[in-house]
Amino acid sequence: MSRVFNFSAGPSVFPEPVLQQAQQEMLEWRDSGMSVMEMSHRGKHFLMIAEELESDLRSLMAVPDNYKVLFLQGGATAQFSLIPQNILNGKTKACYIKTGAWSEKAIKDAQSYCDVIVSASSEDTNFTSIPDASAWTLDEQAAYLHYTSNETIHGVEFQEVPDAKGLTLVSDMSSNILSRKIDVSQYGLIYAGTQKNMGPAGVTVVIVRDDLTGHAGKSTPSVFDYASQAKNQSMLNTPATYNWYLVGLVLKWLKTQGGVESIEQRNIAKAAKLYHAIDQSNLYSNPVAPPFRSRMNVPFILADESLDKPFLASAEANGLFELKGHRSVGGMRASIYNAMPEAGVLALIEFMAEFERTH
Amino acid sequence: MSRVFNFSAGPSVFPEPVLQQAQQEMLEWRDSGMSVMEMSHRGKHFLMIAEELESDLRSLMAVPDNYKVLFLQGGATAQFSLIPQNILNGKTKACYIKTGAWSEKAIKDAQSYCDVIVSASSEDTNFTSIPDASAWTLDEQAAYLHYTSNETIHGVEFQEVPDAKGLTLVSDMSSNILSRKIDVSQYGLIYAGTQKNMGPAGVTVVIVRDDLTGHAGKSTPSVFDYASQAKNQSMLNTPATYNWYLVGLVLKWLKTQGGVESIEQRNIAKAAKLYHAIDQSNLYSNPVAPPFRSRMNVPFILADESLDKPFLASAEANGLFELKGHRSVGGMRASIYNAMPEAGVLALIEFMAEFERTH
Repeated sequence: MSRVFNFSAGPSVFPEPVLQQAQQEMLEWRDSGMSVMEMSHRGKHFLMIAEELESDLRSLMAVPDNYKVLFLQGGATAQFSLIPQNILNGKTKACYIKTGAWSEKAIKDAQSYCDVIVSASSEDTNFTSIPDASAWTLDEQAAYLHYTSNETIHGVEFQEVPDAKGLTLVSDMSSNILSRKIDVSQYGLIYAGTQKNMGPAGVTVVIVRDDLTGHAGKSTPSVFDYASQAKNQSMLNTPATYNWYLVGLVLKWLKTQGGVESIEQRNIAKAAKLYHAIDQSNLYSNPVAPPFRSRMNVPFILADESLDKPFLASAEANGLFELKGHRSVGGMRASIYNAMPEAGVLALIEFMAEFERTH
Repeated sequence: MSRVFNFSAGPSVFPEPVLQQAQQEMLEWRDSGMSVMEMSHRGKHFLMIAEELESDLRSLMAVPDNYKVLFLQGGATAQFSLIPQNILNGKTKACYIKTGAWSEKAIKDAQSYCDVIVSASSEDTNFTSIPDASAWTLDEQAAYLHYTSNETIHGVEFQEVPDAKGLTLVSDMSSNILSRKIDVSQYGLIYAGTQKNMGPAGVTVVIVRDDLTGHAGKSTPSVFDYASQAKNQSMLNTPATYNWYLVGLVLKWLKTQGGVESIEQRNIAKAAKLYHAIDQSNLYSNPVAPPFRSRMNVPFILADESLDKPFLASAEANGLFELKGHRSVGGMRASIYNAMPEAGVLALIEFMAEFERTH
């Protein structure tokens, strides 16, 4: 078959020009005589790729100079443990905001390292909203305040940076990094797996303010000590070289698209069209309160559950793939990351309308 | 330029047919409508890739049924910390054999978790030999005995499985896994980064006997708890999917080469030719005692250090790349892993002879 519209929540759709370039360079990168995946990470060619990767990310996100940018392994889930190990720095408490499945997991893992204060939770609304920051119970003794900027499974997204009231702000941005403009200087630490908006699975970006490094606990594996990795340009051990290269290609593509501000406008438009189509239909509905709806992950259910299977089968017949919702919430989910073209969203909307007409 | 002979110690040369297949499948894997790197790790296509990966590795290494095969992130270096975290199981001591730079690093990291007994060391020979196992000081209270089966930097390789005298045997096989036949049942745990004999950087293989899982200490990050990952087919979180696919392609290529026994015969022949060329020359020498010489990494020095730069420049002009020795030992190093064809070794030998004639 030809390439489909792929609404997977991650790993997810790539910009096609990136795949084409990777294909073209597979056997030989420029005039190096070898594939990127065959290069020594200490060699001049790969060092060039690594430097461009970091400088492109710094420029796209306007990362201030007093922040380190690390490219690690293990995924955001590894960071659920490694953040407290690195930045508790003798403190025994941390505050977490619970807004869905991913912040729940972050809380569970952090509990092995400190007392977790759940400062707010939207569990009572079945994770369809975000509690107002004015009512959060923050503890000034906490080492940091953690929140998940976009809940991939529940489709809930913070539209603004919450007020941390002086606490160090930490955010898991795995599913919306680079999709909207953010002010890095408001954060102590930002982290994200790359497999949604940045490239393939296998790299974890950690952007961390200098003063938060250098305090790793003794049990922290050496390759996950932020200070050591910062000192070694994330090459304390062999990094996932080919993955770095692919992330780098995606960043260069994003620059050709006008950077984060331009892609944000397109993301706003794509999401608005899809939510509008859902809201004006009688068959589809999205449970999330409008102010908190995610621009990246759009879950929706069909009024008649028995139509789920025919919907998915018919969608695939129309070239629309990976629309099944996460097993924990059921229904459907359309993930419409940076690399999902507007044409994909329009094709989905048209298909949904046609399916509703005929069922 | 055209593709060169790449003697990098890792990441290292790929079999060219693997690169060609990856290139061909870059935009669409079979009739899936998408690239492997765009696939959900929970989807049917990727699950097929993952199952074949594990079953091919099990069959190539004849892994017994009471062993789990895990595909993790973080590299062998992360395992330096994660092995004690997972398998100390209440014990406070572990034995390590020190035969070069990599076992030294493993020892250093393990010291954060337990008392490390250095049961033997070849530091007094500048890591050019392996102390006889009959003289090792083993402690029967130790949780395990660790050794590095091939020292990538010093070019020293164990030719036989050491007698662990009842201790659980643990081995870092990063630089010689799949290059020679081994009996997995003699080990408690085998681990290896994939970037030398198995594929790209970014995957760590851990082969662990069932009874050693389920004892992770509380500070172990959840994604690195062997028992949890085993229960989840190494998909507790999103794995490095494209890297798994590439490792899988390399394993399938190895099967077409006749498997481990056939490649071992070729590795023996390649190494013998290169060591012979070094030993019979007046310009080149290898410091390692012959019984312990590595089949994978062949360090050698030139009698006149001032010839190093001309040697490297002239080698590159002849299409022979990445021959510079590790910065900690100097000189040259030719890494001749499974994917290095005999033609590459012969070209190197011919070049070395010609360089000696003319210098």
